[in-house]
Amino acid sequence: MALAAELIAVGSELLRFGRRDGNGDWLQERLSRAGAEVLGRALVDDDPDRIASQVAASAGRASLVVLTGGLGPTEDDRTREALAAWWGRPLLRDPALVRELHARFARFGRVPSPEQERQADVPQGAVPLANPVGSAPGLLLSRGGVQVVALPGVPAEMRAMAEAHVLPLVRDRAGGAALRARVLHVAGRLESEVDGAVADLYAGEGTVLTILAGAGEVHLGLRAEGSDPAVAEGRLSSLDTALRARLGADVYGADGDTLASVTGAALARAGQTLAVAESCTAGLLAAAVTAVPGSSGWFRGGVVVYADDLKVALAGVPEELLRAHGAVSEPVARALAEGARATARADWGLGVTGIAGPGGGTAEKPVGLVFVALSGPGVGKVRCLRLPGDRELIRRRSVAVALDLLRRALP
Amino acid sequence: MALAAELIAVGSELLRFGRRDGNGDWLQERLSRAGAEVLGRALVDDDPDRIASQVAASAGRASLVVLTGGLGPTEDDRTREALAAWWGRPLLRDPALVRELHARFARFGRVPSPEQERQADVPQGAVPLANPVGSAPGLLLSRGGVQVVALPGVPAEMRAMAEAHVLPLVRDRAGGAALRARVLHVAGRLESEVDGAVADLYAGEGTVLTILAGAGEVHLGLRAEGSDPAVAEGRLSSLDTALRARLGADVYGADGDTLASVTGAALARAGQTLAVAESCTAGLLAAAVTAVPGSSGWFRGGVVVYADDLKVALAGVPEELLRAHGAVSEPVARALAEGARATARADWGLGVTGIAGPGGGTAEKPVGLVFVALSGPGVGKVRCLRLPGDRELIRRRSVAVALDLLRRALP
Repeated sequence: MALAAELIAVGSELLRFGRRDGNGDWLQERLSRAGAEVLGRALVDDDPDRIASQVAASAGRASLVVLTGGLGPTEDDRTREALAAWWGRPLLRDPALVRELHARFARFGRVPSPEQERQADVPQGAVPLANPVGSAPGLLLSRGGVQVVALPGVPAEMRAMAEAHVLPLVRDRAGGAALRARVLHVAGRLESEVDGAVADLYAGEGTVLTILAGAGEVHLGLRAEGSDPAVAEGRLSSLDTALRARLGADVYGADGDTLASVTGAALARAGQTLAVAESCTAGLLAAAVTAVPGSSGWFRGGVVVYADDLKVALAGVPEELLRAHGAVSEPVARALAEGARATARADWGLGVTGIAGPGGGTAEKPVGLVFVALSGPGVGKVRCLRLPGDRELIRRRSVAVALDLLRRALP
Repeated sequence: MALAAELIAVGSELLRFGRRDGNGDWLQERLSRAGAEVLGRALVDDDPDRIASQVAASAGRASLVVLTGGLGPTEDDRTREALAAWWGRPLLRDPALVRELHARFARFGRVPSPEQERQADVPQGAVPLANPVGSAPGLLLSRGGVQVVALPGVPAEMRAMAEAHVLPLVRDRAGGAALRARVLHVAGRLESEVDGAVADLYAGEGTVLTILAGAGEVHLGLRAEGSDPAVAEGRLSSLDTALRARLGADVYGADGDTLASVTGAALARAGQTLAVAESCTAGLLAAAVTAVPGSSGWFRGGVVVYADDLKVALAGVPEELLRAHGAVSEPVARALAEGARATARADWGLGVTGIAGPGGGTAEKPVGLVFVALSGPGVGKVRCLRLPGDRELIRRRSVAVALDLLRRALP
C-alpha cells in the first residue's frame, strides 16, 4: 500500500475568485511519484482554529500531512500558531533561527522587523526545515506515527523545500513499495464507448484504472503498485498493453502528449507541413497547433475567415458554393481545406466551418453542426459533426476532431 | 457576519489528474452571493471513514456544510453511509423514495436494479431533497445548529438542487445581513502597480478588497457586508467608486466582462469592424475575440502568418521590411496591422509578432520580445513588450495587450 497523504493549503486568498491550489497540484503529482497517495485535500482560510481543526481531521486519517502557506511574516500568517495549538505545545522563538534571519537580512543591508522575526517561532520540539530560497523556514512535527510538514506558500520556496525535505521522507517511509502512474489519451470515441471497452480493467491485481472525459478526448489514468519498482512497472506496462489492444489507434499518446504535439511530430517525421482555414473555430485550431514548441517547423499558417466574403477572398472558396450550400456545409468545408493548402502552399490543409452558437442555429442547421475537412496528397476527407455543449465546448471539440482527422491520415 | 459555510467534494476521481472541483467553484460563488462565506473546502476520496471525518471537521467550524458527490447508485457512492456514521444513526431505505425511483424508471420502461435502489437509503431522520433532474435525491441533516446538505456530483443536478434547496436556506439563515461582491478587471498595469495604488483600501468599514494577477490583467475582488442589502450595496458602490477614481481607464470592466467582450461592445456601438494578423500568437487573438457570442457582428477575420513568406503573401508585409528589420520588429508589426486592415477590409487592424520561446531567442531579440501594433482611422500605434513567463503566458499576455490597445483607441 502506498503511504496515505493529505494536503492542506492555507490562505484566505485561495478561497476567492475560484483560484486554483497550484501548490497542491504540484505536490500531489510529486508525492504520488515518490510512493505516497494523496487521499484528501483541503483549502482553509487564515483562521488558526480552522487550520488546527483541519490538521486534526487530516492527521486522523493519513500518515503524512503537508500544509502550504501561512508561514510568512505578516499578521495573516497563522500556521505556526495553529500547529502549536494542535500539538498542545507552546510556540517558542528559536534563537538559532533568529540569528539566521538576521544574517540573511544583513546580506541585503537590512535588519528584520519584529514582525519578520515571527518567522523564527517554532512549536516546542518541532524540527525547523531550512528554506534555501526564502526567509521562512518550514516545520516538521511528528505525533502518533503521523508526520506533519508545513511549507511556505511561495511556489518556488515550497518546491525547493519539498524536494529537499519531504520527498526523501516519503521515499524512505514508502520503503520498498513503489507506485507507477501514466495517463493514456484517446481520441475519436465517446467516454461511454471507452468505458464499455475497458470496464473489466478498472481494478486489477495492484492496478487501478480511472476514466475522465475531456473536450473531444477521453483520458485513462493508470496506476500500479508493487513491492518494488520492477513489479509496479511490470503491472503498469501490462495494463497499458491491454488498453492499447482494446482501443487500437484511438490511443494517440500518453502523459504530456497532446493531439497537436503528436500530430506535429508525425508531420515533422514525414517532412510535411500544415495550413488551416477556420470559420467557427476562428483561430483556436491554429492556436492549439502553435502551442507546441517548435511548431514553426511544420506549421505554415492560415486564415481566419469569419465573414463569408473573406472565405472567398482569403481561402478561395467559390462564391457559387456559398450561395448553393451555405457557409456551414460539406462542400464549403472541403473548399476551405483545399484553399488553406493552396494559399499557404502546405502539404496538408484543414478546414472548419460550423455553428458554435448560442445564436445562429436553424432547424436544418442547428447549433453544434460542424463540418471538418482535410485535404492532402491524394487525400480528401470530411466529417459532419453534431456536437453537444456550449460555444466553448463546441469550438474545442471541433479542434480535437480536426487534429485527429489529420493524425490518422499521417504515416 | 456572513453565515460560515464549508464545501466538501467527494470522489476519488477528483484527486486524480489535477482535476478542478467545478461544483465547489460554482457553489462558492452562489453561496457568497446569497449571504454565506465559504471558509474551507475539501476534496476527499470515496472512503466513508474519510468522508465522515471531514464532515466532523467542517461541521465543527461552520454553520453550513455542503457535500457534493457520492450519492449515485454504484459501490463507489458512500456519502449516505458516511453521513449516517457521522450522525450516529442507522441508514434506512425510505419506501416513498423507492416508489418514486420505480415511477421514474417506469417512465423509461425500466425497473431499478437493487444497486440503484440504494439511492433510496436515508440516515434515519434526515430530510430527502427532491432531485428535479436525475434519480439520486439529496439529503439534509441538522445537528447542533449545523446544517449538512448532500447533493449529487452531476453538475446539472447539483445546480438545480442547490437553487431549489440550499440557496433559499442560506438567504433565510443569513437573515437581515447582506453580502455583496464584485470583481473589477484592470488592464495595462502590473499587479505591483495596482497594489501600490489601492493598498489603503484593502480593509474598510464592512469591506474587504483582494487582488489577483491574471495573464496581462489584474483582478480586484470587492466584498461588502451590511446589516441590510442597502447598506452592503452602498459600501460596495463606494469602494467601487474609490477604486475607479484611482485607476481611471485602466479599469476596463466588472464581473463577466472580458477585454474581448468590452472591446467588441465598443466596436459594435461605433459600427466598426476588426481584423487581425498574427505571428507569435498564431490564432489566439482571433480565438479570444470570437469567444464572445455575436462577435460576427464586428469581427471580420484575419490571417495567421507563422511562416515569413506568408507574412508577405497573406498580410502584404513588404519583403524589404522583413529583410531589413527581421520578422520580430516594430515596422513588421505595423505592416501586419495595416495588412490585416486592408486585406480584410476592416476599420481596425491588429498585428502581433514576437518570440514566444522556449527557443528562438537571441541576445538582441530575447524570448518574450513582442511587438503589438494597431492601425485604424487616423490611428497608428505600436507597443514593444518584454514579457516574462513561458510560451503560453507570453502568448496570452500579448493577446491582452493587443485588445487593450484597441479598447483605449475606441470612443
